Amino acid sequence: MTYEEKLSQIRAQMKADNVEAYIIPSADPHISEYLPKYYQCIPFASGFSGSAGTLVITHDFAGLWTDFRYFEQAAEQLQNSGFELVKQKVQHAPEYIQWLTDRLDKGAIVGTDEKLLSVLLGDLLTGQFSLKGISLQHKDYLSPIWENRPELPSDNAFLISEEHAGQSVSSKLAAVRNALSMHQADYHLVSSLDDMAWLFNIRGKDVSFNPVVLSFALINHDHAKLFIQPDKLSEEEKVTLLKSGAEVLPYEDIERALQLIPENSSIFIDPKRNCYAYAKLIPASVRIIKETNPSTNLKAVKNGVELSNTREAMRKDGVAITRFLKWLEENIGKEKITELSAAAQLRKYRAEQEGFIGDSFNTISAYRAHGALPHYAPSEESDAEIKAESLFLLDSGGQYFYGTTDITRTIPMGETTEQERADYTLVLKGMIEGCKVKFPKGTCGYQIDAITRKPLWDYAINYGHGTGHGVGYFLNVHEGPQVFNPTNNPVAIEPGMITSVEPGVYRPGKHGIRIENLVTTVTLEENEFNEWYGFETLTIAPISTSIVIRELLEKAQIDWLNNYNATVFDIVSPALDAEERQWLKEATKAI
Amino acid sequence: MTYEEKLSQIRAQMKADNVEAYIIPSADPHISEYLPKYYQCIPFASGFSGSAGTLVITHDFAGLWTDFRYFEQAAEQLQNSGFELVKQKVQHAPEYIQWLTDRLDKGAIVGTDEKLLSVLLGDLLTGQFSLKGISLQHKDYLSPIWENRPELPSDNAFLISEEHAGQSVSSKLAAVRNALSMHQADYHLVSSLDDMAWLFNIRGKDVSFNPVVLSFALINHDHAKLFIQPDKLSEEEKVTLLKSGAEVLPYEDIERALQLIPENSSIFIDPKRNCYAYAKLIPASVRIIKETNPSTNLKAVKNGVELSNTREAMRKDGVAITRFLKWLEENIGKEKITELSAAAQLRKYRAEQEGFIGDSFNTISAYRAHGALPHYAPSEESDAEIKAESLFLLDSGGQYFYGTTDITRTIPMGETTEQERADYTLVLKGMIEGCKVKFPKGTCGYQIDAITRKPLWDYAINYGHGTGHGVGYFLNVHEGPQVFNPTNNPVAIEPGMITSVEPGVYRPGKHGIRIENLVTTVTLEENEFNEWYGFETLTIAPISTSIVIRELLEKAQIDWLNNYNATVFDIVSPALDAEERQWLKEATKAI
Repeated sequence: MTYEEKLSQIRAQMKADNVEAYIIPSADPHISEYLPKYYQCIPFASGFSGSAGTLVITHDFAGLWTDFRYFEQAAEQLQNSGFELVKQKVQHAPEYIQWLTDRLDKGAIVGTDEKLLSVLLGDLLTGQFSLKGISLQHKDYLSPIWENRPELPSDNAFLISEEHAGQSVSSKLAAVRNALSMHQADYHLVSSLDDMAWLFNIRGKDVSFNPVVLSFALINHDHAKLFIQPDKLSEEEKVTLLKSGAEVLPYEDIERALQLIPENSSIFIDPKRNCYAYAKLIPASVRIIKETNPSTNLKAVKNGVELSNTREAMRKDGVAITRFLKWLEENIGKEKITELSAAAQLRKYRAEQEGFIGDSFNTISAYRAHGALPHYAPSEESDAEIKAESLFLLDSGGQYFYGTTDITRTIPMGETTEQERADYTLVLKGMIEGCKVKFPKGTCGYQIDAITRKPLWDYAINYGHGTGHGVGYFLNVHEGPQVFNPTNNPVAIEPGMITSVEPGVYRPGKHGIRIENLVTTVTLEENEFNEWYGFETLTIAPISTSIVIRELLEKAQIDWLNNYNATVFDIVSPALDAEERQWLKEATKAI
Repeated sequence: MTYEEKLSQIRAQMKADNVEAYIIPSADPHISEYLPKYYQCIPFASGFSGSAGTLVITHDFAGLWTDFRYFEQAAEQLQNSGFELVKQKVQHAPEYIQWLTDRLDKGAIVGTDEKLLSVLLGDLLTGQFSLKGISLQHKDYLSPIWENRPELPSDNAFLISEEHAGQSVSSKLAAVRNALSMHQADYHLVSSLDDMAWLFNIRGKDVSFNPVVLSFALINHDHAKLFIQPDKLSEEEKVTLLKSGAEVLPYEDIERALQLIPENSSIFIDPKRNCYAYAKLIPASVRIIKETNPSTNLKAVKNGVELSNTREAMRKDGVAITRFLKWLEENIGKEKITELSAAAQLRKYRAEQEGFIGDSFNTISAYRAHGALPHYAPSEESDAEIKAESLFLLDSGGQYFYGTTDITRTIPMGETTEQERADYTLVLKGMIEGCKVKFPKGTCGYQIDAITRKPLWDYAINYGHGTGHGVGYFLNVHEGPQVFNPTNNPVAIEPGMITSVEPGVYRPGKHGIRIENLVTTVTLEENEFNEWYGFETLTIAPISTSIVIRELLEKAQIDWLNNYNATVFDIVSPALDAEERQWLKEATKAI
């Protein structure tokens, strides 16, 4: 069936139901970032494969709302699909709501699969629509026309031991229950897969990059029910879970369990991380408490085991990166190296490391002007040859059994321009400021963000993305609740959190520069003013100093850089052979 | 009547009404910072004269909830009042709500004068109370027992011309109506006195320090009704207002006007700046839109006339400050100078300036350890002699017909300790960073705050107050919506806003240091990344360099300081006599 045929079949169903508009969001009932094939509705309906967007279909228009990252890709993929690209002004903003309310008449019905709406988005849609007398109705117009729709993933899941997780499931459940008590909540629904993975010390491979398993939990003060496809776990694993206080039930039973929540009780749900359809199953008399999942906050603060294992993952990743950098330096200009082949080579070095499981996200391997494209990932068509000049931006990460890595290095490939050198130095300066900041307890990500950006602001340079995101422990590479960005997210940065520091400069048509390390918050001192925190840098891989303009850095920044590279040598070199060690010695020498 | 007698009379009324607790907030129906005598309920009931606090009375307890700034003062003033001091943990947080809900039983009634609650606080109280089955009722237990209660102020108000305001009343009303349209609001209630003063180009002297007039406005798309004691304005002024589209009505008629708002219309009210009692007068069918007053945002961005007049006020203030600093330097150690006499001397110099109207707030004149007390203001009892050593902190401001000033200088009086010099230099460093910051359009106060604090954070030093507040034009010295502080207030800093930059260090028992300039946002440049803003420093008065530790400053910071002091000389010196000019030349010489 062509996309145009699908579109006309959707419209036929709309007509039969008297529905004026149909919305297809990019989500699943777990409100995931990466979707199992079963839930890849936008690619099915329109051919667009980007990870952020919304399809809106009316009887005389069909559009994909997406942001600037995907404008080119969407324009190409939507050709002859019947869908037009609608350029969003603000990333992640549901701007189609205004578009719809401007066009629809009072009494109109809008359909959508409410399993694909977060509670937050569902509330927003119904709120905005009701002001105009428009109603939202649950409609699934894709299942009837989706021939050979992929099955839900059936790969095995597996449990990680208490020793490897650093905390038992029963202790995690107790901590969550403590938070429920503080909110006077009787029940708690967990739908988000990284929360599930952390809470039950469970991992899997149901989606790309994130080692998670499709599952839900319904927790009260006596029981914890884990809803998961039963054959994903062995009987032994089910017994282990039961001993930890978690009863395993079939995945689809979550719906019935929600309907059976006792009248007049209360339930705690995270409106960003649960789906609207399931929230609607909760009996009307149950009081709903909408707050961030307790596990989101608990998970963000890594325990000692998680941190020491993560350091081990970083060391392994550093060995792979070092070997890659040496290989790149020694072979550039000699053999043909492209963005894709370089990424493959890096993956090969990572795969040699014990405990490596896969990439933690789609590698951004971007030469020269490609580096200026936000979220560029090379395809067969775009794959550029890397030459012995200008800059090569490489943003990649690994999932190791020991932890999750995410690192960006911008690699000078030979001759560079004055602007490339200045931009590189200023980005590095910002990254160093972000990594060596000292801040009082209670400081939020937006304050770290401002301090990291300042060296670039001084030169009237800025970047459109956040400075950093939380990172999981052998889990999602994007993890909340903390974030370093300019928005006013009031989450304090706590000791044990792992966050990235990754400022950048992007000059369209010329080059893109980003340098990224992961850091964990540590306590530095306590005095009459406060408790003082700082960052321990976790990422262990050389930062090139070859094009640094020394005069743009302050002494303390140069000291940080030299000290960092020396530490990289100390940690990585024992795993290297003599030739590699010699190369790294040179690469990390002080400036 | 003693305070204890008043307390027992309040309790008698509570008993008769079956009321379990009575709350007396510090506010008036305009939710003002400075209260007319008529509304000084807390001093009347308890003797406590601090500007922030709440009295809560039950049948077996009476307490004043206030924050650390007032602990000493409250402990002293509450002696034998029947009230106990309850120390608030967080400034401005209504912690007594939790205290009451912990103690009161279901069905209990709490009384309060709802004219003294903001809509926000009223909503919070009723929301929290209702969870526990407690109800809030309007009760005025003070009027019946307040013998010779002061009258509402009857001083004249006056209009300022369109030329002096830089914008006509009709144009301001049009801008407000435009904002109402955007929010689909039919009506708009304005209660906050600075919004009233700005909107109607009207000033008065109904409260201390703020040149405002007790008044309300009810605005719709056809009319603007100004409710004010009629004899405060001349007939001529009323005609002027009428020509601008504002009809003058008696102050107390606002109540009836609110009751008469047509059914099913909508009204825009700012929940922080209107009282709960009046919001309750609005008919139930009227849709209430709760947002920041449009005039608050419009007023914050000064027009060209306001800015150039403010520069003139700053020049005059700079002349007064210069003369004061010279006087202090030449007389210290020779005659007895105290905190109060120094403040009086400064006021004398200010009063010599044409257009001076009065202080813009209660002068903080704080020698040595007094400087470490937040919001210290000298009294006859505390008045300390200033000696020829250590540091003298002076935070003061003037209301001029041309604008409002607010300046802090910390003045080295002779010998200083190493810690005083280091702290002084770091505070100065932070202030310079705040003043010379370059930032993209869209930056909020919390980002400026972080950049200003960083030089202090680097040394594990912090201060408990915000870095800066908005300042009015011949209006309140504290003005919203923008603020530089660590909270996540998402107000972007716009060109034309006037804000203070005032970092500090406070070492209890030793010294306090704060250095404060007012700045206005200006556009610096526009490039591929954004529009770039910076600050023009408005405050024009020398900053002492005598104890600056040069090595702690970066070159760019020293350049800023030298350039600033040179500018002060250029602007202030033409108004000085030869001897004064010579003194200023020396005081502002480059380091």
